[in-house]
Amino acid sequence: MHNEELKWIENALNSLHETGRMGDLHWRATYTEEDKKGLKLLEQWMQEKNLEIFYDDIGNLYGKIEGEQDKIVLTGSHRDTVKNGGRYDGALGVICAIAAAGSLYAELGKPKKSVEVVAFCEEEGSRFLSGYLGSCYLTGQLSDEIMQQRDVEGITVTEAIKRAGFDENKTKKAPQMSDVERFVELHIEQGGVLEQGGEQVGLVTSIVGLLIGKIIIGGHQNHAGTTPMNLRKDPVTRAAQFIVDMNKWAMTYGEDITCTFGEIQVSPNKSNVIPESVSLSFDIRSTSSDILQEAEERIKALEQLQDGFNYTLEFMPLDAPAQMDEAGLKMLEAAAKELDLSYRKMHSGAGHDSQIIAQKTKTNMIFVPSIGGISHSPLEYSKIEDIGRGYLLLKAFLREIAW
Amino acid sequence: MHNEELKWIENALNSLHETGRMGDLHWRATYTEEDKKGLKLLEQWMQEKNLEIFYDDIGNLYGKIEGEQDKIVLTGSHRDTVKNGGRYDGALGVICAIAAAGSLYAELGKPKKSVEVVAFCEEEGSRFLSGYLGSCYLTGQLSDEIMQQRDVEGITVTEAIKRAGFDENKTKKAPQMSDVERFVELHIEQGGVLEQGGEQVGLVTSIVGLLIGKIIIGGHQNHAGTTPMNLRKDPVTRAAQFIVDMNKWAMTYGEDITCTFGEIQVSPNKSNVIPESVSLSFDIRSTSSDILQEAEERIKALEQLQDGFNYTLEFMPLDAPAQMDEAGLKMLEAAAKELDLSYRKMHSGAGHDSQIIAQKTKTNMIFVPSIGGISHSPLEYSKIEDIGRGYLLLKAFLREIAW
Repeated sequence: MHNEELKWIENALNSLHETGRMGDLHWRATYTEEDKKGLKLLEQWMQEKNLEIFYDDIGNLYGKIEGEQDKIVLTGSHRDTVKNGGRYDGALGVICAIAAAGSLYAELGKPKKSVEVVAFCEEEGSRFLSGYLGSCYLTGQLSDEIMQQRDVEGITVTEAIKRAGFDENKTKKAPQMSDVERFVELHIEQGGVLEQGGEQVGLVTSIVGLLIGKIIIGGHQNHAGTTPMNLRKDPVTRAAQFIVDMNKWAMTYGEDITCTFGEIQVSPNKSNVIPESVSLSFDIRSTSSDILQEAEERIKALEQLQDGFNYTLEFMPLDAPAQMDEAGLKMLEAAAKELDLSYRKMHSGAGHDSQIIAQKTKTNMIFVPSIGGISHSPLEYSKIEDIGRGYLLLKAFLREIAW
Repeated sequence: MHNEELKWIENALNSLHETGRMGDLHWRATYTEEDKKGLKLLEQWMQEKNLEIFYDDIGNLYGKIEGEQDKIVLTGSHRDTVKNGGRYDGALGVICAIAAAGSLYAELGKPKKSVEVVAFCEEEGSRFLSGYLGSCYLTGQLSDEIMQQRDVEGITVTEAIKRAGFDENKTKKAPQMSDVERFVELHIEQGGVLEQGGEQVGLVTSIVGLLIGKIIIGGHQNHAGTTPMNLRKDPVTRAAQFIVDMNKWAMTYGEDITCTFGEIQVSPNKSNVIPESVSLSFDIRSTSSDILQEAEERIKALEQLQDGFNYTLEFMPLDAPAQMDEAGLKMLEAAAKELDLSYRKMHSGAGHDSQIIAQKTKTNMIFVPSIGGISHSPLEYSKIEDIGRGYLLLKAFLREIAW
């Protein structure tokens, strides 16, 4: 039985992946022709498994199994991919949720609580910048401003939804979050922690908060040969010292923080010129709001320095860390032991719809190992036997909370 | 008398500057229409001052005053500018040499030694990459390889000279270096040392050698959120540590070294991705060959590290430091004292034709203060009274060694 389900999941991953093909590229962005092809498959699979399909106004697809009570157990993930993405990120959580809910329904009949499988739209922010459109809509956090955001072709979210032409007959009101008792999302890890540690599944304890922005360090442009070291204001040297200091500081917190300066622009960027300025992106993530606040203070302290450099800081709105449900985590641990799965309790360093949903209801995540920790890449890969283990755990958890 | 000469120099600087105008840009590259216009003025001024003009085969322009002996005293600088350059770099040394030789000739008649004023071509390397074409030709260091170098339009040096169409009747054999007893070059400082120190002229003790090239640090590209700090191979962090270490090391040598990392390329340069690689230019200058060698060893040591990063090093051929003539320096000091000029003995952090000529004959340089240390820029500026002081010193020196 399990092997058949696994075979179905593997085939579904491959078929859904094909819908994102754009020549040599793979990209299933929301409200596009690729999305439409993907949704056709998802609708078909939900219906085959006797889930009742509907859309909400933002274009999230749901497959519902009516329960004895009004309470809803929600499960799923997002259906969109990044540009040049892989076949697991998002897709795996949607497909496993369809398979698990469908097979539990077939085995056990009507659940106590309603089970709804969701395929969220636009989590990645690969078409519209802000991302999490589907989960923000469901939790009532979608501002008019976001609806007026434009893609690279200048099309707004509102207009894109209209052009996508969702079937009005299939559109219903989104579930009330007050009715949603729990949400559970299965996802690939996207990092190398499970593979390195040799654990079979990850049980997520929290999702990191995110402090991102830019630091521009202005110095004095000058001739590389004729300006003695002690007369310089070289922003490259200053930036290097800041990167070293921040890394040293971050390392003192071990796994509780990541700190990345991934984008650097030097101006004028000529080998024989002491640069005028250096722009430095920062991407700092932590499960602890206190650590993020300390990072922010460390960056803001630059502005107070009287060191002859000119600091310009840009901060994006802070993404707060999200805690997963403790009782749910204990149930997952117990189920993993029952299934004889080795597991690691870990935080998620990537953002997920779960962090949005966690603000409104009890939320948990299951991670499946990513080979080489690679994601957002065509090389994204998870072994089918690892997927099978994560799937069994999802199924056991759904059974316990809904049936 | 001196005021008239100074007025003449100021006007000549302005007129020669005009010949480099290309719309909004200023650029007098060698063998171009702008160069031709500049040469027409230089020929005219030399002839007005009774200097006998001729060209050599590479296109250096000379203005000769026949002396009683065969020995030659050479003075001058280069006539080309960088793209978007100023009005002093190169031009000042040529114009002051014409003025000084011409007025000494008028005042004192035939010199003991022949005096030749030279306007070198292509010192900056702004049209052909390697630079110093004129002085390398004069000193017999111009390889066939360099003659086959192409400009951005694919024209070789040989072809460019042909197209420039120098008058065969004006072309003669270049002076034999064995006949050239001394060379002296007046030039703007291009740094802020004299302005900071308040000295009126700079007496150059040596010209720095130059170690330049590129370091490519390869790491492991990964997700900025899901890769714990201790599992990373982040080339930005590694590069930052290297820059900090090299700067710390350089500072221990005070003014004897400069160390610049002016050009940085991060790949893929995305804020939420730990980069795959960082490419870093290095520009290290010192008056000491030992220090340059130590710098080279420090960079090469990267390749021996077993730290999980992949280092690729590119070195350009080493430019050795050039020592100025000590007896000449003493004469310049004595002359400066005689003229009541405050002076600083200093090295040159920029390259000059003098460093090429110094390999073959006794060579000295006089620096005039640069306001704000700015050069290779339309903002390049030296005060006319500072120019006057440097000019008087050049004249006194020429008088002593040639008349």
